[in-house]
Amino acid sequence: MAEKRVGKQTVKFQNPPVITSTASIVGPKEGKGPLGSYFDYVIDDELWGEKTWEKAESKIVRETLSKLLEKSGKSQEDINYVIAGDLLNQDIASTFGIRGTSISYLGVFGACSTICEAMAIGSMIIDGNFADNVICVTSSHFCSAEKQFRFPLELGTQRPPTAQWTVLGCGGVLLSSRGQGPRITHVTVGKIVDKGIKDANNMGAAMAPAAADTILTHLKDTGFAPDYYDLILTGDLGIVGKRICEEIMAEVGFDISKRFNDCGLLIFDREKQDVHAGASGCGCCASVFAGYLYKQLLEGKLKRILLVATGALLSPTSTQQGETIPSIAHAVSIES
Amino acid sequence: MAEKRVGKQTVKFQNPPVITSTASIVGPKEGKGPLGSYFDYVIDDELWGEKTWEKAESKIVRETLSKLLEKSGKSQEDINYVIAGDLLNQDIASTFGIRGTSISYLGVFGACSTICEAMAIGSMIIDGNFADNVICVTSSHFCSAEKQFRFPLELGTQRPPTAQWTVLGCGGVLLSSRGQGPRITHVTVGKIVDKGIKDANNMGAAMAPAAADTILTHLKDTGFAPDYYDLILTGDLGIVGKRICEEIMAEVGFDISKRFNDCGLLIFDREKQDVHAGASGCGCCASVFAGYLYKQLLEGKLKRILLVATGALLSPTSTQQGETIPSIAHAVSIES
Repeated sequence: MAEKRVGKQTVKFQNPPVITSTASIVGPKEGKGPLGSYFDYVIDDELWGEKTWEKAESKIVRETLSKLLEKSGKSQEDINYVIAGDLLNQDIASTFGIRGTSISYLGVFGACSTICEAMAIGSMIIDGNFADNVICVTSSHFCSAEKQFRFPLELGTQRPPTAQWTVLGCGGVLLSSRGQGPRITHVTVGKIVDKGIKDANNMGAAMAPAAADTILTHLKDTGFAPDYYDLILTGDLGIVGKRICEEIMAEVGFDISKRFNDCGLLIFDREKQDVHAGASGCGCCASVFAGYLYKQLLEGKLKRILLVATGALLSPTSTQQGETIPSIAHAVSIES
Repeated sequence: MAEKRVGKQTVKFQNPPVITSTASIVGPKEGKGPLGSYFDYVIDDELWGEKTWEKAESKIVRETLSKLLEKSGKSQEDINYVIAGDLLNQDIASTFGIRGTSISYLGVFGACSTICEAMAIGSMIIDGNFADNVICVTSSHFCSAEKQFRFPLELGTQRPPTAQWTVLGCGGVLLSSRGQGPRITHVTVGKIVDKGIKDANNMGAAMAPAAADTILTHLKDTGFAPDYYDLILTGDLGIVGKRICEEIMAEVGFDISKRFNDCGLLIFDREKQDVHAGASGCGCCASVFAGYLYKQLLEGKLKRILLVATGALLSPTSTQQGETIPSIAHAVSIES
């Protein structure tokens, strides 16, 4: 069965897991963006009736999970595992969002790469015949993330042009061993890449080499040309990181520019919504996939995509101690 | 192939992954404890030549990984995945410890349950035929954990009798598809259990119901009686949580007391080492298994153990916001 492994870092599934359903909930700013109509629910304000941003983020996870079960017609008992993560310290958005369910829980952390990490693990669990249904869900919240990673919002700190805007949102996907929907055919799990960027307000530049490394490895492992895919979509490099990633790929002989975009550039209108270099956050790639891309795949507007979630594995402590920003990217190949 | 799944939450492996090697590094206090002679290396001081405790913890991860490769005779190229996590915000001990390797990385978070979570995922990846070699490694550091979760050490804050002492240590295991060594036959992935404990200085009480839930589920799923195992070993309930777990199990008709112990009670001498209720931390269960238990299994002193790592999924933020402590436990069944 060596054919399950392709090249250095890529897995090819024998019974490709089916993405049978998705759900997404986003914040008001995201709801006003170009993809607003694709999300299942847009909340009115950032607290959504809770006393803190962290509790609001947990509620968004809880409600996304609930919406996903409702849309898929499944009960908690049908789900073998939920794999989840977020940006908050000790993954508390996920933990407190999932608390109250009776589903076996695997917590993961890959910063903004988390949704693809979860889908990679979930797909292996399903193709390995350990589960029939796995939910992968990740979230982020602009206000809780700013408070934790940068400055309290109340300070009104100015953000540099390279900064990205953390998405308030959550996306969940249901992976199943059978059923109708797009299928995950391959995953390429990334390794940590650190090219020495130290500026926590320029995470696109830090993550771009990791994205390029994973895309290049995926193409080499599979033998696919970039135009095998209708879309290669990173999440979330923003405008700065996207350009760097394209340049790195061009230098090694792969022109991906015609098929390439970034979740961080899709969810907001950069000209009208004042998000500087674009969007980011565990909830960005997850909600863009669960809300927008999944429907494009279902409707046949996209047939094959490579979703490459990217994560900046820093913490405020590592930044304060003068460390650079290690980054990672995981690629999930999805065909309708 | 439905026989891979046993009962509600348990997986039974068809080709049980082999634990072909382990490595462990601990701090000076742990080196002076009853298991001191079992660890591969005992560092002299908590900083180990680094400027900060966080950097020291990353170095311990890095060196444990290096020691594991050396002991197993493997190179980085032989390892398909490294699965790692720790207690620090955004898993930075793991990230910065693994940075510099070229191994595909999956970051996980399950608080002190992380080593068993990693072994559960790693075992599924190997039995699913997606990898030949997976390294699972987790760490904790008393000083970095106190600073982050409670108070800076410099304050000299008094600790209540129910408090546990976070282990300075790291344990790594190499799971392989073939080779010699004890095998992982089953895993039971836990669900979140929260019985309303709010005291972050009494995590044993918070985690005990989760441990009991997973042990009970494991016994029901597999049909094993408690004495099927030579040892059921939780990590890390301490003296308070161990008693509660025993009581809960007795109430539901399972007397586990004769076969039951806790990693948090093995690594220190509670009478001489002033650790209050016992030890805890991602590095406790990991180093006790990698250092002590693995050798007992190799020497045939233990034949079958159920390792049940337990995690308190709190953060200082959730505690400050008045939240209770959601907990989880994952069980890994190991036979020599």
